[in-house]
Amino acid sequence: MIRVTTFLGLGEMGSALAAANLKHGAGTVVWNRSPGKAPSGATVADTVAAAVAADPVIVACLFDLTSVHDVLDPVVLGPAAGGLAGRTLINLTTTTPNQSRGLAAWAADHGVTYLDGAIMAVPGMIGGPGSAVLYSGDAGAFEANRPLLDRWGTSTFLGVDAGAAALYDMAMLTGMYTMFAGFLHGAAMVAADGGSARGFAAMQAPFLAAMTGGLAGMASTVDSGTYTGQSLYFTETALAALLTASEEQGVDTRLLKPVHDLVRSQIEAGFGAQGTARIYEELRR
Amino acid sequence: MIRVTTFLGLGEMGSALAAANLKHGAGTVVWNRSPGKAPSGATVADTVAAAVAADPVIVACLFDLTSVHDVLDPVVLGPAAGGLAGRTLINLTTTTPNQSRGLAAWAADHGVTYLDGAIMAVPGMIGGPGSAVLYSGDAGAFEANRPLLDRWGTSTFLGVDAGAAALYDMAMLTGMYTMFAGFLHGAAMVAADGGSARGFAAMQAPFLAAMTGGLAGMASTVDSGTYTGQSLYFTETALAALLTASEEQGVDTRLLKPVHDLVRSQIEAGFGAQGTARIYEELRR
Ligand SMILES: NC(=O)c1ccc[n+]([C@@H]2O[C@H](COP(=O)([O-])OP(=O)(O)OC[C@H]3O[C@@H](n4cnc5c(N)ncnc54)[C@H](OP(=O)(O)O)[C@@H]3O)[C@@H](O)[C@H]2O)c1
Ligand SMILES: NC(=O)c1ccc[n+]([C@@H]2O[C@H](COP(=O)([O-])OP(=O)(O)OC[C@H]3O[C@@H](n4cnc5c(N)ncnc54)[C@H](OP(=O)(O)O)[C@@H]3O)[C@@H](O)[C@H]2O)c1
Repeated sequence: MIRVTTFLGLGEMGSALAAANLKHGAGTVVWNRSPGKAPSGATVADTVAAAVAADPVIVACLFDLTSVHDVLDPVVLGPAAGGLAGRTLINLTTTTPNQSRGLAAWAADHGVTYLDGAIMAVPGMIGGPGSAVLYSGDAGAFEANRPLLDRWGTSTFLGVDAGAAALYDMAMLTGMYTMFAGFLHGAAMVAADGGSARGFAAMQAPFLAAMTGGLAGMASTVDSGTYTGQSLYFTETALAALLTASEEQGVDTRLLKPVHDLVRSQIEAGFGAQGTARIYEELRR
Repeated sequence: MIRVTTFLGLGEMGSALAAANLKHGAGTVVWNRSPGKAPSGATVADTVAAAVAADPVIVACLFDLTSVHDVLDPVVLGPAAGGLAGRTLINLTTTTPNQSRGLAAWAADHGVTYLDGAIMAVPGMIGGPGSAVLYSGDAGAFEANRPLLDRWGTSTFLGVDAGAAALYDMAMLTGMYTMFAGFLHGAAMVAADGGSARGFAAMQAPFLAAMTGGLAGMASTVDSGTYTGQSLYFTETALAALLTASEEQGVDTRLLKPVHDLVRSQIEAGFGAQGTARIYEELRR
């Protein structure tokens, strides 16, 4: 029997995952709620139950937790009940760590092997350089399916806690979204004097990329609890100047002020001479 | 006459600037408020007036605007008045854009040529790869002093508005501090489940560096006002999940919540289907 993989969900991301599988000449069965989204070369299943029956490995990439249950509960609980038992579900739908843990428990209750995945890429990157997917849950399922998983990007297994992939995903996205918002704040500052966002991005992007080189050092001071490096006093002075300049440029300080507040709280707690990475102590309650 | 350069201020940064000059075998006169900080090979001036008299080019790297006036007002206004007239002041002290403009006006009033600089590096980086200094103000002073300036890092002239270097500096530092704080938020999230900050940094640093590749695209949508790309709806869903996960990990959401609020405000204003870079419109009042 030729090994095929079943894909549930053909949104932008699910389609990219299925397409990467097809590109490797691998058998591909697909199902999607709305018709007409199947990539050419794929076998379209009319029902979820038929799609699930086609292969022991099911890849789900749906909108959210609710849609996963909408799609799979009938297979597990309904007239076609048991269709998922004994199979492996690789769920790449974005869920919170606790939702992933809940799905792992739900899978265990129904005899399903569960591997949770978090995609650190946009659809256009899938299968190309820079695409990475984090996994956690069933270690055997991760190992057994490496050829499949590696078609999408660099595969990293983070442990048997099914919530780990989602946790690291969300922890990393926090840095990304705050960085994006900080960049747009800076673009608004220079725009007030006629500077273009593109011109600013050309300076900001290499600068921020270089500054990521400082994260390992900050992390060491967090892990050791010693907190050396640029002091909170120094950073407070700098952030106060950034706030003044922002206000003078007519830029809303909703984003930047909390950073200043975090630094000030640590200074008020008596740690001003210690390193700025003490912001961590403020965030970790 | 052998060309020397005068350095006022031998704090961590001023010392690094003077040391880079000495390393090139260039004549170096130094003055600092407290004694005992001169790098070996430098000529120590006993008074600011003597230091200023030693060369037509004066580099100041002091603590803030007040310290610049404390040091130079007596030379300009006091008994040794006029000592700065006809000379060039290269001021690398961190000041806000408006403070830099104020210093340029003050310099013009006293016959001093003024070049403002903003150092995008820490002292240990000065003179090495990755060190960059932004300049604005007198274009002739920038050109005439390139050999000196290039000893510290890549020199970029941003225009005759003396506030431009400080503006771009502060706009770029906003991105850096928000990125650092976002990283520490993520480190706090994984720490709640026993993950080390160093392990997290090893994943986060290359991910954020890769994501800086997206800034140019976001900037294009800002400049064109078309706002394509990942929608505000998509980002709102993602940020809501990050907030839930943060709370479940016991992490303070003071930093992340404003990012979500910025996105929500734009959705409430009717732009949910447009790109996430519309956060810019919210920040630019
Ligand atoms: N796009 C990205 O950049 C990206 C990056 C990382 C992770 N992800 C994650 O990947 C997942 C999919 O994202 P996407 O970009 O592909 O989203 P999308 O384009 O909006 O697709 C959503 C998919 O879910 C299906 N769906 C939604 N609700 C459903 C329900 N109640 N029952 C059955 N099917 C339902 C949709 O079916 P219809 O076609 O019938 O609507 C569609 O196949 C999300 O969890 C997302 O967070 C996306
Ligand atoms: N360090 C960095 O990573 C960095 C990066 C970019 C830009 N900068 C900027 O560079 C400038 C200097 O920073 P730094 O790190 O060298 O600071 P620092 O080590 O604290 O040194 C401050 C310097 O200013 C002098 N000073 C302070 N108040 C004075 C006053 N009222 N009168 C005379 N001298 C006074 C100090 O003299 P004493 O020795 O007598 O105290 C010392 O020379 C700041 O504006 C800073 O924002 C620093």
